[in-house]
Amino acid sequence: MSTAEASRIAEEMRHSPVDHLHALVAADMAATDRVIHDRLGSAVALIPDLSLHLIDSGGKRLRPMLTLAAARLCGYSGDAHVKLAAAVEFIHTATLLHDDVVDASSLRRGKLAANVVWGNKPSILVGDFLFSRAFQLMVEAGSMPVLDILAGASAIIAEGEVMQLKSANNLAVSEADYMRVVTAKTATLFAASAQAGATIARGAADAIEGLRAYGHNLGIAFQLVDDVLDYSGRQAQMGKSVGDDFREAKVTLPLILAFERADEEAKRFWTRTIQTGPQHEVDLARAIAYVENTGAIRDTRVAAQRYVDAACASLACFPKSEMRETLLGVAGTSVARAG
Amino acid sequence: MSTAEASRIAEEMRHSPVDHLHALVAADMAATDRVIHDRLGSAVALIPDLSLHLIDSGGKRLRPMLTLAAARLCGYSGDAHVKLAAAVEFIHTATLLHDDVVDASSLRRGKLAANVVWGNKPSILVGDFLFSRAFQLMVEAGSMPVLDILAGASAIIAEGEVMQLKSANNLAVSEADYMRVVTAKTATLFAASAQAGATIARGAADAIEGLRAYGHNLGIAFQLVDDVLDYSGRQAQMGKSVGDDFREAKVTLPLILAFERADEEAKRFWTRTIQTGPQHEVDLARAIAYVENTGAIRDTRVAAQRYVDAACASLACFPKSEMRETLLGVAGTSVARAG
Repeated sequence: MSTAEASRIAEEMRHSPVDHLHALVAADMAATDRVIHDRLGSAVALIPDLSLHLIDSGGKRLRPMLTLAAARLCGYSGDAHVKLAAAVEFIHTATLLHDDVVDASSLRRGKLAANVVWGNKPSILVGDFLFSRAFQLMVEAGSMPVLDILAGASAIIAEGEVMQLKSANNLAVSEADYMRVVTAKTATLFAASAQAGATIARGAADAIEGLRAYGHNLGIAFQLVDDVLDYSGRQAQMGKSVGDDFREAKVTLPLILAFERADEEAKRFWTRTIQTGPQHEVDLARAIAYVENTGAIRDTRVAAQRYVDAACASLACFPKSEMRETLLGVAGTSVARAG
Repeated sequence: MSTAEASRIAEEMRHSPVDHLHALVAADMAATDRVIHDRLGSAVALIPDLSLHLIDSGGKRLRPMLTLAAARLCGYSGDAHVKLAAAVEFIHTATLLHDDVVDASSLRRGKLAANVVWGNKPSILVGDFLFSRAFQLMVEAGSMPVLDILAGASAIIAEGEVMQLKSANNLAVSEADYMRVVTAKTATLFAASAQAGATIARGAADAIEGLRAYGHNLGIAFQLVDDVLDYSGRQAQMGKSVGDDFREAKVTLPLILAFERADEEAKRFWTRTIQTGPQHEVDLARAIAYVENTGAIRDTRVAAQRYVDAACASLACFPKSEMRETLLGVAGTSVARAG
């Protein structure tokens, strides 16, 4: 790569490494999108209608991109990675549909959530359908080790979701409890997405492990940043309402740190709004002030940065390449979202 | 087999061919139960608690028995069929958990349904967990063709569940619509359970197809009998409330036939109770009288018998054996439940 080209890439990536990653795997992503749309076909019209409402709602498709990028980084020249990328997006979509039912969410990516438009029943059942389709795609990809990775990841995700039920209305949730849920719910699918791509490409053991660790650490960083944004971001930027976690009394790291550092008055505030109720609309502004003023937001961002650093270190086993630098860029700017 | 032994078997089977089938695969069923209990282990106690509430509630384990019996009938001597039998039971349990949330059921096998005891959220998420565990077990069994069969079956089941949503409160549902739902929701897993056992045993093509067709036809017969029992059975016999389908305004074959044959007064009754409301507790007795008096119950039983005959004919490719005769007995007595 020439110096001029390298600096052009660096310049582009300063703006949006995710867009740059998308450009690097553009042909594969287009093929993945075709598989996604083809495989949603069903005589039952509600299935594609409900699925596409969510799948085509402007999500970044980060997980399938990780699968495709990991396969390419490991020198893959086949086409089974496209089916795996679609499978990963289907698993992710299925968990979002079930999540929104469980959380009774009203918005997802700035649109009405599927459970609001069609009700809980179709959201549950279409989620089950997508999950099954994901496994059919994996079978077509034909790699038993990859099936093992993604079936294991799916079980851990579900376990994390069950674990998280206890985090609502519960100020006794510790930072360690929270990290266990984030690892299971979010990091596991990021890790498995990258690992699956490296595995279908028959990457070397250290390459597969490096990409798995990259996905794992990136996933945790993303979740921490999301949790910060829920107390500070703008709705348009996130595509969901600010204050959702607070209103649903979810105990995330900003809240855990703020509660640890709370004086008596603030403790009473958190106990009422999170644990005993009632919570009023005006409470959100005070909650935001508390997480800001106690340094909880800053320290959650610092924690996210540590995972970003670990994600970047995980790719040290790969030689320098445009793909590797772009993945480093994706990790590097993830915390900037919470700036 | 001696004549004396054959008549002993015939005598035993007259009482309960399902018990006789269970006895034939008793060691394998015990191994399957161990796998089921082992693989429910989780650091999240709610997962085994909720799963075992349903799994240990006295279901007949018919689907895993089919997997085990099919493998044996095809001469299998390995042990991977036990993992598949457990996987089939996990898929079935996951669909029951989600079904009971979707239908807001209060009873399952004579006990409070999991959604009543623990709520909808854990039922949805533990269902997802069991589904993932099922795929992990299939990966361990190591047969890609079996993964293909069961992933495909899972997608069709979910499709059938979505299709069925339209059957509630809708007297326009035809016999053909109803049969499509029954085929997808019930027959598919019966068929796949038997086919998976035959496939792991590397049975001949006609043996695999024969067992698949046996499962398919048996599944339809069972569902038709269940639908009859919902209008006529005793609660203790079924382990669920009589009149559930009527109260939930589900349109099943007895109702479809009764509505086709209804006079003006009966049509007004069905329209009010199923489509427009209100429905009162006293309406159930009149509904039962209508399905009885129009011959709808008798004709649903006749339809079930046709599927029983087809199930039995599907096993013609196998030589006579205790296992084959027992499977014929299971099919033969399934309609007797609705006697």
